[in-house]
Amino acid sequence: MNLHTLNTPAALIDVGRMQRNIARMQTHLDALGVRFRPHVKTTKCRHVVDAQIAAGAQGITVSTLKEAEQFFAHGIRDIVYAVGMVPAKLGQALALRRQGCDLKIVADSLPAAQAIAAFGREHGERFDVWIEVDVDGHRSGIPPEADLLIDVGRALTGGGTLLGGVLAHAGSSYEHDTPDALAAIAEQERSRTVRAAERLRAAGLPCPVVSIGSTPTALAAERLDGVTEVRAGVYVMFDLVMHNIGVCEQSDIALSVLTTVIGHQEEKGWAIVDAGWMAMSRDRGTQRQARDFGYGQICTEAGEVLDDYLMSAANQEHGIVSRTGTPDTDIARRFPIGTRLRILPNHACATGAQHPDYHAIGDDGAAQTWPRFYGW
Amino acid sequence: MNLHTLNTPAALIDVGRMQRNIARMQTHLDALGVRFRPHVKTTKCRHVVDAQIAAGAQGITVSTLKEAEQFFAHGIRDIVYAVGMVPAKLGQALALRRQGCDLKIVADSLPAAQAIAAFGREHGERFDVWIEVDVDGHRSGIPPEADLLIDVGRALTGGGTLLGGVLAHAGSSYEHDTPDALAAIAEQERSRTVRAAERLRAAGLPCPVVSIGSTPTALAAERLDGVTEVRAGVYVMFDLVMHNIGVCEQSDIALSVLTTVIGHQEEKGWAIVDAGWMAMSRDRGTQRQARDFGYGQICTEAGEVLDDYLMSAANQEHGIVSRTGTPDTDIARRFPIGTRLRILPNHACATGAQHPDYHAIGDDGAAQTWPRFYGW
Repeated sequence: MNLHTLNTPAALIDVGRMQRNIARMQTHLDALGVRFRPHVKTTKCRHVVDAQIAAGAQGITVSTLKEAEQFFAHGIRDIVYAVGMVPAKLGQALALRRQGCDLKIVADSLPAAQAIAAFGREHGERFDVWIEVDVDGHRSGIPPEADLLIDVGRALTGGGTLLGGVLAHAGSSYEHDTPDALAAIAEQERSRTVRAAERLRAAGLPCPVVSIGSTPTALAAERLDGVTEVRAGVYVMFDLVMHNIGVCEQSDIALSVLTTVIGHQEEKGWAIVDAGWMAMSRDRGTQRQARDFGYGQICTEAGEVLDDYLMSAANQEHGIVSRTGTPDTDIARRFPIGTRLRILPNHACATGAQHPDYHAIGDDGAAQTWPRFYGW
Repeated sequence: MNLHTLNTPAALIDVGRMQRNIARMQTHLDALGVRFRPHVKTTKCRHVVDAQIAAGAQGITVSTLKEAEQFFAHGIRDIVYAVGMVPAKLGQALALRRQGCDLKIVADSLPAAQAIAAFGREHGERFDVWIEVDVDGHRSGIPPEADLLIDVGRALTGGGTLLGGVLAHAGSSYEHDTPDALAAIAEQERSRTVRAAERLRAAGLPCPVVSIGSTPTALAAERLDGVTEVRAGVYVMFDLVMHNIGVCEQSDIALSVLTTVIGHQEEKGWAIVDAGWMAMSRDRGTQRQARDFGYGQICTEAGEVLDDYLMSAANQEHGIVSRTGTPDTDIARRFPIGTRLRILPNHACATGAQHPDYHAIGDDGAAQTWPRFYGW
């Protein structure tokens, strides 16, 4: 099987690019003296995660307990479930720990912390719990200066739990697109999370782990004093959103969707392709950025970017390829029926999730099937 | 297993609502004297399709050859693959036909028609090909008055193929939201497709099938003279986009996502839930409609609509629930951690695709697992 014989639509991974992306992040974080814990929600693929670990990653981050179960079954013990724990999921977490998984869970409220502690005491377990810190008002977490931080810390040191550390994610880093702004939000993520750890320690509570990260802040960080580990996910593939933020080039994007031209509307300058939103996802993450790539950037089958050609609209299994600016009324001759194109995605996590398998393409064009899973 | 014990997030089908939706469409089309061929891309679930056929549907429409293969293996022979055929997929189509599948394929260009005919002659097969007609400039198809229509018809009657009919889809019906406008676009879809059939017949070509449809036009059609069959997909579940178009009530929507509250940001009036865009999809189909539902309408676990509460934002595995208008700073007491909610989706096809299984909920709250498939 190779690039030219794959059925379309198909999700491709350019293995050379992926390996360069992995090496770039690992080298950067090694130089800053912190551990790296990749977020596997981007690919949910053991072949990719094996490559991340081979390059030096220590443990993984997951967004669902199914990811924890799958990767623990694959042999990875050190796992952080980075979504707030609720009572109904504690049985599943307990089962993983009893099988030997070193699962860490997260809380950012007193009711959640108390429920975890009570469940732990009831079942003779000591859950390793990290407190989520809010560094930018983006979503979840406790502000580092809040009294609640200490209250939650105390609730996690009264039996049934260990207070393992603090964890933050500067999700608002996606809203910036200059080196200075990214360096500033990276420093904000670092300093506020470290401040939370210092306050816990000053209150006599343990806080061995200080975990932060997002792809933009991880790459923009210039110093990581007080941080013990960094988490990031999408860097392994990159995508057009990351390109617009300014942390990668289009030529770094390792994920693309292979598609075939199935028709035209010549007067409109449209080529119709067999990749619609089912293959690309509905993610329009570049819509509010400085450069809107529609549903994706068109490339040749070999991967050469075709400037000005975008997937401008999508139905479930149909995509519309058109030129920005004046319509290309010669499009039926440029891309005849049967032409194969690659499309760079807005958001690698969303596009990957639409596909049961990746097709890993080597430098010689040979394709290997790398399965990924989905669901909860 | 029942509604109250399911893990979250989970895709629920309210079976009573689904059966009423199926009966409504079938009764309407029976009264108009046409066959009904549901589009199974909405659910890709044999339990749902079995219910559609039990109610009177004749054959199915598919958006991928994988759907054709899966449903043929399940015993359905009469299948239309309603996406333009390309040469590279003819081998797959041939294999299905040789196994006994009565697969119909679609073409809207001379190169595609010629390639199908040549492949058919080469393999001693007569592919049943329908010509796609453009009734509204929405996407694909040949305008009914174009000379190309006759040229393609002739290319399909020279061996290797049978000209089985014409097929159209008024995708632009989604842009309307009044009964008059919907009736008008339904009549436009009907009359232009019938006109294409008449022109083929006048040129001495066969055109036994006249196939049209979309959920809005199928439900709005007042007469279907000259039409032999109608296709529609999303009607079986309905969704908030269809609600805004005006063809269903919120109380008709059979698909929802069950979720659990995992945290709060009280000052902002946010409840954080464990359904993000991975569970809802990134589809924001109501964004440009008269009423924007964000990522979905919040309901109680039992399904009662909570007016003014929407999923206002989503990350991969986190959703933000908030009140429209003034923030609900009492939200942590209204929806404490562990509260289970249901979310009505923007687009049932997109939301369903994120889930490996539906959980079919009966009137007594009992849950059955109905698997669905994905990929190509």
